[in-house]
Amino acid sequence: MTTLAEIQKQLISTNFDAYIVTRNNLFLGQDILNEENKISELTGFDGSSGNLIIFRDKVFLLVDGRYELQAQNQVNKDIITVVCTRDSIGTWIQNNIETPTKFLYNSWCHSISEVDYWKRSLINHEFVDDKSDILGERVIKAEAEIFELEEQFCGITAEEKISYFTKFINDHHLDAYLICECDCVSWLMNLRSSLIKNTPIIRAFALVSAQGEVSLFVNDFSTLASELENYKGKNIGVAYNRTPKRIQFLMKDKHIWLNNINNPIIDWKSQKNPVEISGFKNAHIRDGLAVCKFLHWLENNNETIDELGVVNKLFEYRKQGKNFYSDSFDTIAAFASNGAIVHYHPSEKTNQQICGDSLLLIDSGAQYYDGTTDITRTIAIGTPSDEMKQNYTQVLKAHIAVASALFPQNTAGSAIDTLSRAQLWKLGQEYAHGTGHGVGHFLGVHEGPQSLSAKNNIPLKKDMVLSIEPGFYIENEYGIRLENLAIIENASTLYSENMLKFTPLTVVPFDNRLINKDMLSENEINWLNDYHKFVFETLSPLCDKELKIWLQKSCKMI
Amino acid sequence: MTTLAEIQKQLISTNFDAYIVTRNNLFLGQDILNEENKISELTGFDGSSGNLIIFRDKVFLLVDGRYELQAQNQVNKDIITVVCTRDSIGTWIQNNIETPTKFLYNSWCHSISEVDYWKRSLINHEFVDDKSDILGERVIKAEAEIFELEEQFCGITAEEKISYFTKFINDHHLDAYLICECDCVSWLMNLRSSLIKNTPIIRAFALVSAQGEVSLFVNDFSTLASELENYKGKNIGVAYNRTPKRIQFLMKDKHIWLNNINNPIIDWKSQKNPVEISGFKNAHIRDGLAVCKFLHWLENNNETIDELGVVNKLFEYRKQGKNFYSDSFDTIAAFASNGAIVHYHPSEKTNQQICGDSLLLIDSGAQYYDGTTDITRTIAIGTPSDEMKQNYTQVLKAHIAVASALFPQNTAGSAIDTLSRAQLWKLGQEYAHGTGHGVGHFLGVHEGPQSLSAKNNIPLKKDMVLSIEPGFYIENEYGIRLENLAIIENASTLYSENMLKFTPLTVVPFDNRLINKDMLSENEINWLNDYHKFVFETLSPLCDKELKIWLQKSCKMI
Repeated sequence: MTTLAEIQKQLISTNFDAYIVTRNNLFLGQDILNEENKISELTGFDGSSGNLIIFRDKVFLLVDGRYELQAQNQVNKDIITVVCTRDSIGTWIQNNIETPTKFLYNSWCHSISEVDYWKRSLINHEFVDDKSDILGERVIKAEAEIFELEEQFCGITAEEKISYFTKFINDHHLDAYLICECDCVSWLMNLRSSLIKNTPIIRAFALVSAQGEVSLFVNDFSTLASELENYKGKNIGVAYNRTPKRIQFLMKDKHIWLNNINNPIIDWKSQKNPVEISGFKNAHIRDGLAVCKFLHWLENNNETIDELGVVNKLFEYRKQGKNFYSDSFDTIAAFASNGAIVHYHPSEKTNQQICGDSLLLIDSGAQYYDGTTDITRTIAIGTPSDEMKQNYTQVLKAHIAVASALFPQNTAGSAIDTLSRAQLWKLGQEYAHGTGHGVGHFLGVHEGPQSLSAKNNIPLKKDMVLSIEPGFYIENEYGIRLENLAIIENASTLYSENMLKFTPLTVVPFDNRLINKDMLSENEINWLNDYHKFVFETLSPLCDKELKIWLQKSCKMI
Repeated sequence: MTTLAEIQKQLISTNFDAYIVTRNNLFLGQDILNEENKISELTGFDGSSGNLIIFRDKVFLLVDGRYELQAQNQVNKDIITVVCTRDSIGTWIQNNIETPTKFLYNSWCHSISEVDYWKRSLINHEFVDDKSDILGERVIKAEAEIFELEEQFCGITAEEKISYFTKFINDHHLDAYLICECDCVSWLMNLRSSLIKNTPIIRAFALVSAQGEVSLFVNDFSTLASELENYKGKNIGVAYNRTPKRIQFLMKDKHIWLNNINNPIIDWKSQKNPVEISGFKNAHIRDGLAVCKFLHWLENNNETIDELGVVNKLFEYRKQGKNFYSDSFDTIAAFASNGAIVHYHPSEKTNQQICGDSLLLIDSGAQYYDGTTDITRTIAIGTPSDEMKQNYTQVLKAHIAVASALFPQNTAGSAIDTLSRAQLWKLGQEYAHGTGHGVGHFLGVHEGPQSLSAKNNIPLKKDMVLSIEPGFYIENEYGIRLENLAIIENASTLYSENMLKFTPLTVVPFDNRLINKDMLSENEINWLNDYHKFVFETLSPLCDKELKIWLQKSCKMI
């Protein structure tokens, strides 16, 4: 276990000015084991994203808007300055560090593109690979069961997927392609693992040869080096923006030609196949039933309950569902002022009793073998104020603006993002997070390349699954977020047969006690009534009498 | 005068594969003299933007959606392939030319950034500066009167502007800064010229020293080379994305250090000063009155009139206005099917009689010493069909979506663009142009950096002037476009005092004979009624009795 002071001492002794520490390991994603989280080890901040820049005499923790409050609470502010920014490390350095600086970084933890950008654009500074790994190994060699996802769930065999991929390799005149994105490796091989809590990916690199042979590197990356011996003088493809810089150094040592070619699996898996789509729909019906059972229980519960109690109760209902595997992320149950902390998770320390008049925000989801869910509902506890109703309804309008949008093929996610935000802007409201993210099929609940956010220009396509989750947060009071998952489907309009629309996957009513009907337009009312009709018709055959009555009340036309 | 065949012959004899020809000259902008337009000289296509790539055996003319039809009509399609694309030259080559190619280009006509991008990203190809200038000189040494814009119009003296700029130079530790954007030079010096029809910029580079001395280079760029002799070993700033690559070659020869620093005038002049703002408002009142007089005349005119007649009549009314200088671009008067050709201009050849039942689209504007205008109205001629009314109303909804939007400081223009487009997407409609452009103050009617278009991420700020001009076009039938200019002002909302909104500058009613009220929401109806109230209150004191009656009818509440 290293400390900030030790790193600062080493910086001085080795004549460096700063050390760049990322939260991610060599898989470059957010999914890491707790023991691998160098940022929490060094600072105490355990949010799911952030970067740390350690100078000899000061330390900056860079986090986005979601984590500003949490970071301020978790770190020692005498030593660490928390910076709220959406800038990348490079951009932040460019805008904030003028003095020429010698940075150390770990080339396993940064993509080729990122390091190349630093070297090209931040010419005042120097960036040196920390080959001695002063923070220690970034990946823990953990043994975990790897299992195959059955064809009834994934729809296409690994053999078939590998044959597409082999064609791609040959089309690009490559001798092999190294896949460094582990969710792509999981998808290609139809393999899953229990290693990462809530995210059933396997952690592996895959080297696929032009002949269709696949070598998986799960724990031991020294075997990768020896495998690469066979490719001296040959052409290997990698995606520069998803491949650790260290791989490039390794290939150079082996005299291999590296080709920067995007990994096509990222697009392939973003458009779900028919088996995955029907799995998603079925999983959401089971998940919706569990959430409704919980909401019904909550409404009729007379005993005091706290946030952790909500988390446990919801899990109890979910785990009864067919094909249930795990939660898809740690459930957020955030009452009153805790709801204003975006991506708050209750702990023993912060746990709130749920009583009095306020709002309860519950963001949760599950991994089923046939699909992944993610839903946020905000629920009235006690008697909601008119202001709460107004803000809830405004967030609902933002949700409906996206959920009812029609848009051309290949519209950028950033364009759709605005439709939601503009509804909140009318009252001067804003939320410091994206409007929605892509969702994997029994993989990561956050999955690219598509998302609904200001900077995402990935074209939206049929059969992509995304969340729609605008919010509004009043510090120290409460938070509101309303999230459905939706799948993009074709839509026919007066002048084009070829438009796209979102079709909801999530099957849970919105809390109509919080809706101010006067604020909704006719179109918005129609959308809401149609949605509630769909929820009622889908779930009511699965409900017992009591739950059906609750569902009828919750789904009644407004 | 060179021909395509001659260039192709030269390519073969000099062992090159292709020649890249731009429409712009060394000022890198759209504003050129007709005699300077190499693209029209070589191909016959005279649209206001486009690029030409001449291969030995084929020729590609790259135009955007606005010009696809026009280009198809104007060029010899046996020789020239018209490509409709919004890609830059570099991106187009990257996506379409696989064979390694030796390109010639003229380094006066491409920015440093553009050429650097080619050399960095299109590594299969070679790009060589055509030093022998086989197309001939790209700038015609034309003598034109240069005049000073009075302080009552521009608000800030040149001395004061230069003193800001000198501070900027010193803040960046430069010895001088070379401004290559001629609208910035015009703004800095408060100088204008009649050289370019409709755009009163002077065409000049300005070298500003750290001591605040300004050297202008208007026609003779050999004097620039000799002036630069004084800066050997010194630091000069330029904006790489707005400075011809040839300048970099020149500086290198003189052993001058070039620093890539954005020209701050681009931002300074985008936020209008109080004198400019009040000038804009006053100019729009005069312009609105002229347009209303024309519309009233048109409605009561019993003689046949054609598109060119509209152009002349409108000019007659406009030129009566105080401070009138010229049109701000060639008036578009496009009847029926001509209206579907975006940026159509009537000529003797295409001129249509205005009769029968259809729509007349008029896009026009003027330069006044105190401000620049740009307005599009679409007018019912005869009896409009229900379909026309529906489409007109849908475009009006798109206009109002932007005109009534509230948004935070620094929102990107791309975000606002979507609000307009999303209204049309509902019917499967789309337009192949931006939603709006920035407008200069007695300078170019199109002025950056801000615009409302899918790829513009420039932050929108208070006191910027933009057009709002969604459209819908049905080929061979008619076109609809509804354009106001608007200025960004502060707006107070429930949760923020600090939002922005658009306030209309244009003062002309929308044709209420074309509005289907049932399609408008309450908010849209309110916006329209408020706007028409503003128009009536502003113009009615200036109208004679007859015009006032027309105005009253045109502005009546719906």
